[in-house]
Amino acid sequence: MSQGSAIRVGVLGAQGRMGSEVCRAVEAASDLEVVAKVDAGDSLEALVDAGVQVVVDFTNPDVVMDNLRFCVSHGIHAVVGTSGFSEERLASVAEWLTGTSVGVLIAPNFAIGAVLSMRFAELAAKYYDSAEVIELHHPRKLDAPSGTAAHTARLISEARAAAGLGAMPDATTSEADGARGTVVGGVRVHSLRIAGMIAHQEVVFGTEGETLTLRHDSLDRTSFMPGVLLGVRSVAAHPGLSVGLDKYMDL
Amino acid sequence: MSQGSAIRVGVLGAQGRMGSEVCRAVEAASDLEVVAKVDAGDSLEALVDAGVQVVVDFTNPDVVMDNLRFCVSHGIHAVVGTSGFSEERLASVAEWLTGTSVGVLIAPNFAIGAVLSMRFAELAAKYYDSAEVIELHHPRKLDAPSGTAAHTARLISEARAAAGLGAMPDATTSEADGARGTVVGGVRVHSLRIAGMIAHQEVVFGTEGETLTLRHDSLDRTSFMPGVLLGVRSVAAHPGLSVGLDKYMDL
Amino acid sequence: MSQGSAIRVGVLGAQGRMGSEVCRAVEAASDLEVVAKVDAGDSLEALVDAGVQVVVDFTNPDVVMDNLRFCVSHGIHAVVGTSGFSEERLASVAEWLTGTSVGVLIAPNFAIGAVLSMRFAELAAKYYDSAEVIELHHPRKLDAPSGTAAHTARLISEARAAAGLGAMPDATTSEADGARGTVVGGVRVHSLRIAGMIAHQEVVFGTEGETLTLRHDSLDRTSFMPGVLLGVRSVAAHPGLSVGLDKYMDL
Amino acid sequence: MSQGSAIRVGVLGAQGRMGSEVCRAVEAASDLEVVAKVDAGDSLEALVDAGVQVVVDFTNPDVVMDNLRFCVSHGIHAVVGTSGFSEERLASVAEWLTGTSVGVLIAPNFAIGAVLSMRFAELAAKYYDSAEVIELHHPRKLDAPSGTAAHTARLISEARAAAGLGAMPDATTSEADGARGTVVGGVRVHSLRIAGMIAHQEVVFGTEGETLTLRHDSLDRTSFMPGVLLGVRSVAAHPGLSVGLDKYMDL
Repeated sequence: MSQGSAIRVGVLGAQGRMGSEVCRAVEAASDLEVVAKVDAGDSLEALVDAGVQVVVDFTNPDVVMDNLRFCVSHGIHAVVGTSGFSEERLASVAEWLTGTSVGVLIAPNFAIGAVLSMRFAELAAKYYDSAEVIELHHPRKLDAPSGTAAHTARLISEARAAAGLGAMPDATTSEADGARGTVVGGVRVHSLRIAGMIAHQEVVFGTEGETLTLRHDSLDRTSFMPGVLLGVRSVAAHPGLSVGLDKYMDL
Repeated sequence: MSQGSAIRVGVLGAQGRMGSEVCRAVEAASDLEVVAKVDAGDSLEALVDAGVQVVVDFTNPDVVMDNLRFCVSHGIHAVVGTSGFSEERLASVAEWLTGTSVGVLIAPNFAIGAVLSMRFAELAAKYYDSAEVIELHHPRKLDAPSGTAAHTARLISEARAAAGLGAMPDATTSEADGARGTVVGGVRVHSLRIAGMIAHQEVVFGTEGETLTLRHDSLDRTSFMPGVLLGVRSVAAHPGLSVGLDKYMDL
Repeated sequence: MSQGSAIRVGVLGAQGRMGSEVCRAVEAASDLEVVAKVDAGDSLEALVDAGVQVVVDFTNPDVVMDNLRFCVSHGIHAVVGTSGFSEERLASVAEWLTGTSVGVLIAPNFAIGAVLSMRFAELAAKYYDSAEVIELHHPRKLDAPSGTAAHTARLISEARAAAGLGAMPDATTSEADGARGTVVGGVRVHSLRIAGMIAHQEVVFGTEGETLTLRHDSLDRTSFMPGVLLGVRSVAAHPGLSVGLDKYMDL
Repeated sequence: MSQGSAIRVGVLGAQGRMGSEVCRAVEAASDLEVVAKVDAGDSLEALVDAGVQVVVDFTNPDVVMDNLRFCVSHGIHAVVGTSGFSEERLASVAEWLTGTSVGVLIAPNFAIGAVLSMRFAELAAKYYDSAEVIELHHPRKLDAPSGTAAHTARLISEARAAAGLGAMPDATTSEADGARGTVVGGVRVHSLRIAGMIAHQEVVFGTEGETLTLRHDSLDRTSFMPGVLLGVRSVAAHPGLSVGLDKYMDL
C-alpha cells in the first residue's frame, strides 16, 4: 500500500526474473512504492515523468551503463544488481558521480550470506598462504566468473597486499589450458555451471596443516530481497559510489 | 636454543600425542624453553622445582582440574588444550583465580582456522533463523561433543540472545533417540567419529532462501602449534580466566 | 490428456505440498490419468468407485497404514512416499501382501540422486572402517531421522554384515546426551533442521588416511516427480513389497 | 621378511615421497620383496641385474615413458602412479605391449576412495544434465589437472556418449580467460592448489531440482599403499595396458 511519504521506486528490467521479484517485494513494503516499470524498448524518460527517487536495476551488462548515466544525470539514486562491472566501468561511474549528491550502490550480491561470506573472506585472508574461489551457478548464466566471485577475489587480494603477503605458493609447470581458473587480483577463480543449481560460492583458504572453507548457498532468488530493500532505503544517505552491500551494514 | 630471558615452560602430558608436539614446538622457539616435562605418575612439584612460569596442559578431563588448582595456587600461568570443561568447571577455575595475578587460557581449539570459524559464527548468528554445529573427529577421541563445538554453540547462543532472537524453528514431533543431536545453549550439536579424519567442524546457518556454512579442517596436529605458542607468550599479560584464543587476538 | 488406456491413478493427500505436485505431474503425463483425489476427511471408498489402479500416497505416518491396508484388500497397487516406516510396519505390509498380486513400493526418496546415493553407499560400505549419515531438512519436517537416512543406514549395516565387518571404532567414553546421534542398524544418523534448506543428505565414510563423502541435494520438490512416475508405471509389474526405487532400476 | 617365492619388486623414484612409502609398504608385506631401488642418475640396468619382476614407478612425467619402454622391452611388469599420461602416451604404451605378455597398470590414483569415486561417477553420469570435476591439491604439485581428475572426466564423457547424451547446457557468452576450467572429453575440470591440502576431488552432477556430489579426500599418502600392493600382486595376471585400479577390482 503506497503512501504520500513512501520512497518512489523505479524498476529497470521489471519483467525479468529478478525485476519481477523486486516489484513484488517493493510493493509489499509499506514505506516503498513502485511508480515506474521500465523494460527493453521503453524510454528511460518514464523515470523522470514518474518522479522516481531510486531505481533498482537488474538488467544486463549491455544496457546498464546507459541506464546509470541517465540516472546520475537526472539526480536519481540507483541500486544495481546487474553484473559485468569491470574496474573501468566502476571508474566511469565514480567519475560521473563526482560533485553530485547522487548515491549508486553496485552490489555483486544482495544475499546477506553472500555479504557475510565476502566480509569473512576479507578478514581471514591475511592468516592463510593460499586462497581460491569456486562459484557454482545454473547454466543459464551469461558471464563467468560471477560478479560476487570476482569481488570476493579482489577483497582477498587487497587484504593480502595490506598484510604484506606475497604471491601464493604454486609449483604448477604443466597446466592444461584453463585448468587453474582465471586470475582476479592474483586470486584464482573457478566457475561451474550445473543444472539444478541456483547460486553458490565457496572460498577456500589453506595454510600448513589446516584449511577454512566459507560456503554460501542461495537456493531461491527471494533470498536477495531483504538486501535489495535495505539498499533502496539507504542509498540516498550514501552519496557517491558504494560497491558491496556491506558498505551499508555494521560488520 | 634456550636463553636466560626465555619463558620457562612446563609441559603436562609431555609424552602424549599433543604434548610431544608442544615440546618440539616450544624447543624450536628461541624465546621459550622447556624446563619440565610431567606425565601420569609424575609429581606436580617438579614444576615448582624447575621454576616453571607457564604450563601447557594437554592431558585429560580426569586430571586437568587438579593440575590447574595446583598451578594457580603456586602462581604458575596455564595454557590449556584439554577438553571437557563444563560451565561448572569454568566457574571453579574463575573462582580460584579471583584475587591472583595468574592467567589461565582455556582454548577449545588452537588452530587459527577454528578461532576464525568461531568468531565468524558469532558474527553471523543474528542474521539467521537456524544454526547447528557438526563436528567430525578421529574415533580415538574420548568426549562428544568436542570442546570447540560446544564453545561455538555457546557463542551462537549468546549472540542470538543479544539480538533478541527466540528459539529456532523445529516442527519435529517424532524423534528417534538422539537423532537431533545434543543441545548446548539451545543450539544443536552433532558429533561424528570417522576413521581417517583428524579434526573438522561445520557450522550451518540458514534463513529463507539461503544458507551459510563455515567449515574448518585440521589435517595435521602441527596446525595447533602457532596458536599454542601465541598462548604461552601472552598468558602472563592476561590475568584471570580467558576462554578461547580469540581473546588474545585482534578480530 | 487422459486416454482410454491410461493408468488410472488415485492421489492420497492430494491437497498437500507433495500431493498437489503429484497431481500436476500425473496429469502432464499422457499415459497416466488422475481419477480420484483423496484428502483428510474423505472416504477411501472413492478410490474403488473411481476404478483406481494405482494410488500415490504422500500423507503422514498416522494414516498411511490404514490407507495401505485398504488398498491391498481392494487390489489397488500403491506407490508410497510417506515417511515413518519402522521394521514392524514394513513386516505388516509384507504380510498383508502375501498371496496377492498387488504391488507396493515404499520409497524413502524418489529423487534419482537419492537413489544413486543410497546404492553407492551400499557398494562402498565394505571398504571402510567407519560410516555415518547426516541429513539436513527444512524445519517443518515432523520426523527425525528422515526415511531416506534410516534406509541408507540399514543398507550400510547390511553390506557391512555381509562383508563380515564388526562394530565401527569409537572410543567415546563421555557423551553429552544425543551428541553421537541415533543408531540405525549400528550406523549413527544425525538430523539437522535448517531454515532455507529443502532435503539434503551426506554419507561419510572413512578409513586410515582417506574419506569418501556422498552428498545429495534436493533443491526443489519437482525433483521427485520423475521417480514417482517411474513408480506408478512399474508397480503393477512388481507384486509384493518393494522398498526403495532402485528395485525398479538397473543399477 | 623376504622369501624365496616372494614377488621381486623394483622401485623407481625410491627416494621420493611416494617411492619411499612404497618401499616401506612392500617390505612390510611378507609376499613381496624389494630387490632394486632406482633414482635419478641410476641406470635402469639395475632392474635386470636384480631379476625384478614388477616395478613400481612414482617418478615424473619427464622420465616415465623411458622407464616404461625399458621395462616392457625387458619383460618387466609395471605399476605406475606417475601422472601426465595423455591419450598419445597411453596409445604409445599400448602399442609397445602388443604381442607381449607384459602387464602395465597406469592408475591415476591408488586410493580406494578415489577408485570408488570414479566408478560411481561413471554410473551416475547418464542420469544428469551437467557434470564437472573439481580437484584440490597441495601447491607442490607440478601438473594441472591431476591424472585422477582427467581420468574421471574421460569416464563421464564416455558414459554420456554411450547413453546418447549431447553437450551440457551452458549459456556462457562472456568468460574471463580460464574461468570455466579446462575441458577433458567435453567435461569441465577445475584445479585448485591450496597449502595444507593433500589430495581431494569433487565430482558435481546436476539436473533440474537436484544435485549429487561425490567427494574423496586423501589426507595421508599412506592411503595409497593398499591399492599399490593390490596392483603389484595382480599386474602379472593382466597382460597389456590397464588404466585405473578398478580394472583389477570387483565393482
